[in-house]
Amino acid sequence: MSAQNKSMSTQEVANRLVSLCRQGQVLEAGQELYADNIESREPENSQMPGLLTGKQAVTGKGKQFAEMIEAQHEGKISDPLVAGNHFAISWWMDVTMKGQGRTQMDEVIVYEVKDGKIIKEQFYY
Amino acid sequence: MSAQNKSMSTQEVANRLVSLCRQGQVLEAGQELYADNIESREPENSQMPGLLTGKQAVTGKGKQFAEMIEAQHEGKISDPLVAGNHFAISWWMDVTMKGQGRTQMDEVIVYEVKDGKIIKEQFYY
Repeated sequence: MSAQNKSMSTQEVANRLVSLCRQGQVLEAGQELYADNIESREPENSQMPGLLTGKQAVTGKGKQFAEMIEAQHEGKISDPLVAGNHFAISWWMDVTMKGQGRTQMDEVIVYEVKDGKIIKEQFYY
Repeated sequence: MSAQNKSMSTQEVANRLVSLCRQGQVLEAGQELYADNIESREPENSQMPGLLTGKQAVTGKGKQFAEMIEAQHEGKISDPLVAGNHFAISWWMDVTMKGQGRTQMDEVIVYEVKDGKIIKEQFYY
């Protein structure tokens, strides 16, 4: 981190993201931590759009996903693995999706941080 | 994991990879755990080839990298984060590269496992 600014380190961004998401503040985490030009990438075989760019589009995706959840029964987010300007977390959830019934989801997410903001996120499931 | 075979679970593959690499058996880990059709992806901005496919090509890359290291002073590999058929580790090393002097490298690596073998690896640095 440059001494010229007070932006959060990768570790600080990672801790803040995990903390907010564990409290269920997933959309708030995006509002606070996504860079304006964030790129969000889903797996190739996903039903979700493969690549979205821009804070509005990516927070919109999160909101859409949240609205598909009828009930969250349990969730578990790992502590972050931090390396340089990247960090990874694992996220497990047991949810009932509207019209699709109960399901368990398990994913790894890798984030890239620049100037205290998340500029990339990549989902693996 | 299917009950029809005895291939290792994602957790078992992750543990085995970490265990071998912590012992310095990085090339042996590839020989044992890579699928024949492994895909290995480096970051877009890397000096390394972006995408290599096939066990021979990918183990060759590992060998080439190992040969560029003059001395390894310290290394640290995290415990794996496992989610479904993916896992992530962080890897930090303090090395002297031939002709390039001493440097610290810090990366996140995400692996995808199928039938007890690693079919994809993606480096982030």
